[in-house]
Amino acid sequence: MLPPVDLRPPFGISRSSHARLCVTDLARSRDFYTSILGLVVTEEDADACYLRGLEEACHHSLVLQRSGEGGEGGTARRIGFRVLFEEDLDVAYRYFADQGLPAAWADAPYQGRTLHVSDPIGTSLELCATMETRPRLHIDFDLHKGASAQRLDHFQVLTPDTYGLCAFYSALGFRNSEYLEHGEELLGAFMYRKGTCLDLAIVHGSGPRLHHFAYWLPDGARVSQLCDILAGAYETDRIERGPGRHGITNAYFLYLRDPDGHRIELYTSDYLSVDPDFEPIRWNLHDSRRQALWGGHAPKSWFLEGSLVEAFDGGWVKVEESELQGLPAYVR
Amino acid sequence: MLPPVDLRPPFGISRSSHARLCVTDLARSRDFYTSILGLVVTEEDADACYLRGLEEACHHSLVLQRSGEGGEGGTARRIGFRVLFEEDLDVAYRYFADQGLPAAWADAPYQGRTLHVSDPIGTSLELCATMETRPRLHIDFDLHKGASAQRLDHFQVLTPDTYGLCAFYSALGFRNSEYLEHGEELLGAFMYRKGTCLDLAIVHGSGPRLHHFAYWLPDGARVSQLCDILAGAYETDRIERGPGRHGITNAYFLYLRDPDGHRIELYTSDYLSVDPDFEPIRWNLHDSRRQALWGGHAPKSWFLEGSLVEAFDGGWVKVEESELQGLPAYVR
Amino acid sequence: MLPPVDLRPPFGISRSSHARLCVTDLARSRDFYTSILGLVVTEEDADACYLRGLEEACHHSLVLQRSGEGGEGGTARRIGFRVLFEEDLDVAYRYFADQGLPAAWADAPYQGRTLHVSDPIGTSLELCATMETRPRLHIDFDLHKGASAQRLDHFQVLTPDTYGLCAFYSALGFRNSEYLEHGEELLGAFMYRKGTCLDLAIVHGSGPRLHHFAYWLPDGARVSQLCDILAGAYETDRIERGPGRHGITNAYFLYLRDPDGHRIELYTSDYLSVDPDFEPIRWNLHDSRRQALWGGHAPKSWFLEGSLVEAFDGGWVKVEESELQGLPAYVR
Amino acid sequence: MLPPVDLRPPFGISRSSHARLCVTDLARSRDFYTSILGLVVTEEDADACYLRGLEEACHHSLVLQRSGEGGEGGTARRIGFRVLFEEDLDVAYRYFADQGLPAAWADAPYQGRTLHVSDPIGTSLELCATMETRPRLHIDFDLHKGASAQRLDHFQVLTPDTYGLCAFYSALGFRNSEYLEHGEELLGAFMYRKGTCLDLAIVHGSGPRLHHFAYWLPDGARVSQLCDILAGAYETDRIERGPGRHGITNAYFLYLRDPDGHRIELYTSDYLSVDPDFEPIRWNLHDSRRQALWGGHAPKSWFLEGSLVEAFDGGWVKVEESELQGLPAYVR
Repeated sequence: MLPPVDLRPPFGISRSSHARLCVTDLARSRDFYTSILGLVVTEEDADACYLRGLEEACHHSLVLQRSGEGGEGGTARRIGFRVLFEEDLDVAYRYFADQGLPAAWADAPYQGRTLHVSDPIGTSLELCATMETRPRLHIDFDLHKGASAQRLDHFQVLTPDTYGLCAFYSALGFRNSEYLEHGEELLGAFMYRKGTCLDLAIVHGSGPRLHHFAYWLPDGARVSQLCDILAGAYETDRIERGPGRHGITNAYFLYLRDPDGHRIELYTSDYLSVDPDFEPIRWNLHDSRRQALWGGHAPKSWFLEGSLVEAFDGGWVKVEESELQGLPAYVR
Repeated sequence: MLPPVDLRPPFGISRSSHARLCVTDLARSRDFYTSILGLVVTEEDADACYLRGLEEACHHSLVLQRSGEGGEGGTARRIGFRVLFEEDLDVAYRYFADQGLPAAWADAPYQGRTLHVSDPIGTSLELCATMETRPRLHIDFDLHKGASAQRLDHFQVLTPDTYGLCAFYSALGFRNSEYLEHGEELLGAFMYRKGTCLDLAIVHGSGPRLHHFAYWLPDGARVSQLCDILAGAYETDRIERGPGRHGITNAYFLYLRDPDGHRIELYTSDYLSVDPDFEPIRWNLHDSRRQALWGGHAPKSWFLEGSLVEAFDGGWVKVEESELQGLPAYVR
Repeated sequence: MLPPVDLRPPFGISRSSHARLCVTDLARSRDFYTSILGLVVTEEDADACYLRGLEEACHHSLVLQRSGEGGEGGTARRIGFRVLFEEDLDVAYRYFADQGLPAAWADAPYQGRTLHVSDPIGTSLELCATMETRPRLHIDFDLHKGASAQRLDHFQVLTPDTYGLCAFYSALGFRNSEYLEHGEELLGAFMYRKGTCLDLAIVHGSGPRLHHFAYWLPDGARVSQLCDILAGAYETDRIERGPGRHGITNAYFLYLRDPDGHRIELYTSDYLSVDPDFEPIRWNLHDSRRQALWGGHAPKSWFLEGSLVEAFDGGWVKVEESELQGLPAYVR
Repeated sequence: MLPPVDLRPPFGISRSSHARLCVTDLARSRDFYTSILGLVVTEEDADACYLRGLEEACHHSLVLQRSGEGGEGGTARRIGFRVLFEEDLDVAYRYFADQGLPAAWADAPYQGRTLHVSDPIGTSLELCATMETRPRLHIDFDLHKGASAQRLDHFQVLTPDTYGLCAFYSALGFRNSEYLEHGEELLGAFMYRKGTCLDLAIVHGSGPRLHHFAYWLPDGARVSQLCDILAGAYETDRIERGPGRHGITNAYFLYLRDPDGHRIELYTSDYLSVDPDFEPIRWNLHDSRRQALWGGHAPKSWFLEGSLVEAFDGGWVKVEESELQGLPAYVR
């Protein structure tokens, strides 16, 4: 059973928008994201690199931040969402504060007024209504490189309490395109605001952790071309899984790990979900088609690993272990 | 200059949803849309055929209606939009009535409460909040045929008063992803509600007429495959233009004419446009890249022809001629 | 070290041409090869089905033969090669007979004069100069189904004596495009006559067995489309390996097992090899790129299983075990 | 009616191999062929640039030579074929000399012994058996650029005497995959040696002229990607025709003109033609499918223009006008 969705939520998140990641070696990560994924550098300095996809008018969808001492590389600072109106931010501030959740105004370069909050499991979120814009580069095809990644599409987070977190985001107006149940237990909620399949996937696992963030590719042909480019560059160790297709959301995917181990899904193919009157698609835990529509296996690392997330007041959120034992049959 | 957009419109249209077309030979048109486009028949009887795209959960996105006496084949009955909530329909009724525009409740099978209205140039519209649903067939790949058309995406209408019609839809919350100007004169407005590039393209020309409706293809590979299938079937007379790419919206397109001459755009590639803070892309009339990014020419028929639209009280809306003379350089 | 190639061989084999397979259930196998691979039935009767690829003018490239009593399903009757001239057949007859290898004239429907022979490890071969022809169907795109398999491309056989078998075919003018060595030991010879990368791959393993036969796909897009079609039909158990790319020959591949377990490679991408003055590409056993250019693993079944081959005088050739122990690192 | 083919020709041409073109601005042409087509520079100096395709082991398939005074840019110096054996060159020398055709030994860097000859209409040919080799770069995908052109595939020449020239090459063992007739008159002969559809297309027109040379692309996806890259670089003036598909040979094509006006066909899709026992496909002049399987038109320039060819003793071969009047219906 899915929790009820508030179709007129208190404030309006419009889409998943940007990720801030800690990286150990800024130059190396910059090279990975520009030459392999094909992201474009909008701005950079000694400590941070702001990147956007080829179709994106927003200043950045990925911010790489040089990690300081203490092995923070491979951790996720925060994930960002856009709201439609400035006043949504004020409503959001009160909403989180009223629930006893952390909320504070923050200063974020190239963005409008920015609110930092945490969801109930401790994922650090960043909300803003506006961002500086830059020209879209989608038809500057001669500048496209690597996978020609077009835009940030969604995040996937892991938590031992899938239902609880799904209920929290349902109250914020996130609807489910699809979901995964085992008996009565909700194990995966594939939630969206922007009218496609996903802005936030919530999947059962030890958490809170960021399982992956996803960029959209312009075409199926880019998936195998990306594999080829990685092979030519002797970089196929970056490929963790795929190419393959998920039954859930129809994603034709390839999963990479960046130099710090952050996981990126490159994918194409989904569907529109604007109308509220359709039934979310229900998947059963034992139906391997949800994960691997073409058959085959997922590696254990894909199932078990994820990036730690930064705590609201610094440091990293302690991971609560999942009580579920064993691995699905498609994991090897 | 673009007219101002009401970002908090009086009622909420969520997307372009469905088209109702008159066809002379129902069986012939049904065959065209199922075997060539790959649409699926949800329901049909002697007088009408209800079709949907492979990813669509809604009951229909295209309704073919057998035309009666009098040569109505090749005319468009009406174009449909969805609103998010039932009460939007009531607000919409008053909104149109208050402006002296036609508005009446209608009975439309398989749809919820349905409102018929006309826009200021006489295009017949149909609004509803709900429709019966059916399972999406997007991963039933063994059933896919022809172009594997996924979903209705948008309409393009022709009018001699582009600015006026753009202003009308701007007041309903339609935003522009891109637009075409010649000096100060607005000649094309590419408007959307659902967060992609288009729900309604308004282009200068004698009107009101329906220039085309568009279905989304899953992949660039399908464009050339569709050409091949049409060639194998000795049906390339159906191809009016393409394959090619529009600079506007980045659409990789193929235009077909159905057995009654209705024009369909099959296309893939666009971009997301959820954020309200980017500048719409402005194109100049003399920049041929907007229409034909790869160069080449458009046939005169593509530039000059379109489907008549049904008047609110029956019969067909009289076409007002455009005062502009001459053809753009890319038309031959 | 590769054995010397006779560039002016005693008789001229021009290409790998056709396979004859035993199948348990003729109707079921026919359905697999026509609806999944997209082969076309040229002729059929109660005991045999003659199929060809979409571009093939030859009467058949695959003959399915209903197996009799005794569990012959899943065995390969023989593999066929074409010679350019009738007199090549006579020279071939003497050549095999002079070497003490089996050779006999046979009656093969739809083929010209046909010679049955065995190579030194017992693989049953069939040679002919002519075959009835039928129109190529390559541009009848409206008839194409499934993977749209275009043509038979090559065979791969397993033998414990790679060097010996490679030497035998080198004397018949087969050249190597690529080869695999471990130290001084030849473990794989990728041999051709027709000017592409392959007509016959000889790979180390318990043998003689037929590892697979391969059909060429028209395009990379067909590989993922075939996966999708199999998924839609709940037939992904047929997928044994892939999609992936071999470094050897550059094949973008998918391996299927037919209802009797025969292995088929569907692939696209190779290169021309007409000139005799280039060096074959040498691969080292420990370079996983030869097998899996994109990384990932091959299943044990792909490495270990193959079809038994019919003996010259009936029954099945006894398999000689390979003395090599262990599995390469990319096999799991 | 086609002239008879000598299946055991006096000497063995194995394939079309390389082209030598005059160019006005060597740096500009080098940039076009490397960044747009994706060819690789094997060697270059102030007067010549030697290029090869990504899969080619031969030293060069295209030689750009800086033209001297007198407006030679846009002319074709000669087209090259490979023979299999050194002694073929000696036989060829005598064969041409015996027929009173020009023949002389030449010095050609990076090639083995090289023979210069002219065919009966004056096309300058270059024959050699060997060439220096370089590593194939087909799996060095990270180095691929632009169209990723893989290999030179064929030439198309124009002549007013199609039958005569076809007869000449038929005597050298070139077979027809397809041909074009109007009544009894042969207007196009699509001839090959290497077992695919084409090495030399002979088409009716004022001549001798080189209509185009063709490079093979790895995949259909590259055709539209090449259009995109040209659009991004504001270079679509280079596109003369396409994308489209020829019924003849099934080529999915794009025709470009280089900075000097030389025409290049970039294409993928053909078929194998090794067996001598199939019937060449006959096309009728009035069947537009042969030229434009998807419908549409060819521009006049494509029909009427071509590169002059160098005469054996220098200067340019005088063009003999075709006596045929009018343009086919598909030309505009």
